[in-house]
Amino acid sequence: MDAPPTRDRILIATAELFRRQGYAATGLKAVVTGARAPFGSLYHHFPGGKQQLATEVVHASGAYFQALVCAVYDEQPDTAAAVRAVFDGAAETLAATDYEDACPITTVALEVASTDEVLRRATAEVFEAWTAALTERVGDRDRALAVLSALEGAFVLCRATRSTAPMLAAGRMAAAHATSVTVT
Amino acid sequence: MDAPPTRDRILIATAELFRRQGYAATGLKAVVTGARAPFGSLYHHFPGGKQQLATEVVHASGAYFQALVCAVYDEQPDTAAAVRAVFDGAAETLAATDYEDACPITTVALEVASTDEVLRRATAEVFEAWTAALTERVGDRDRALAVLSALEGAFVLCRATRSTAPMLAAGRMAAAHATSVTVT
Repeated sequence: MDAPPTRDRILIATAELFRRQGYAATGLKAVVTGARAPFGSLYHHFPGGKQQLATEVVHASGAYFQALVCAVYDEQPDTAAAVRAVFDGAAETLAATDYEDACPITTVALEVASTDEVLRRATAEVFEAWTAALTERVGDRDRALAVLSALEGAFVLCRATRSTAPMLAAGRMAAAHATSVTVT
Repeated sequence: MDAPPTRDRILIATAELFRRQGYAATGLKAVVTGARAPFGSLYHHFPGGKQQLATEVVHASGAYFQALVCAVYDEQPDTAAAVRAVFDGAAETLAATDYEDACPITTVALEVASTDEVLRRATAEVFEAWTAALTERVGDRDRALAVLSALEGAFVLCRATRSTAPMLAAGRMAAAHATSVTVT
């Protein structure tokens, strides 16, 4: 199998570093080392530098994660089972990856929310796309926002405490809420 | 009124910078500038450098936030109203502070979860203390973890999208869950 082209290797290496340590801690030297790419290739492929690279990574990671979650969701027989499957799958992945593989954009989203408007908008567009995909599935936007909040927050607590208990507890709440008859 | 002592000014300035931009982006120069303190005072008061400073800030911010949330919670007549009051209050604060004033430790928690075990433990201890305080109030630990996950995730979505809708939607879900008869 051929190695992916340089541009893709740079995006993949950056996504991995962002997920693990966030935006500010990720230097361009670590990116090119991770991507096995010459330093010059970075500005050749991303003339806008770190901000352009980060914007593309946020969008690409967002689309990848959305496809993954929707695939897990859509193979379940009903809404409650589907929501539970997403949270259970997230718990399994966290445990299997030493609590590294969580939401690909949250750390960056929090780092840039008040400091980089271009990047903040990129993260907002991803969260908006996820909310829209989930709204289609759980029937209304408020439920989708609540379920997504529970998932994002559980990622934080699980990573910090090195436990899957928050994800499993949040999944039970989210599944019940997604199928509740009235939203009070 | 006297200004707070240098050590406290350093802790306050660091907490403010962490909340706004996270751990990695916060340099010690910005800390002493924000604290109006001479550079040397930093290593005088925090001989362990940035890691010691960050550990103390995480613990101090955690205790402060816990006291604030418990005060809002405990002045309400019942559990559902109390949970709603916490989420509604968070939404108001976000809107009033241009979406800067959110959870004081989440950004740091995500940045260090896989990269700094000393700091990760500090964030885990804070989340554990919050979970214990909430468990006393909502009756069981799984409900507390779910409610706390919803709050943390809503902070992320609100800051990224500059909207209070996720916090209000998460609050409705959390209030219903905190008072549900059976947790499935």
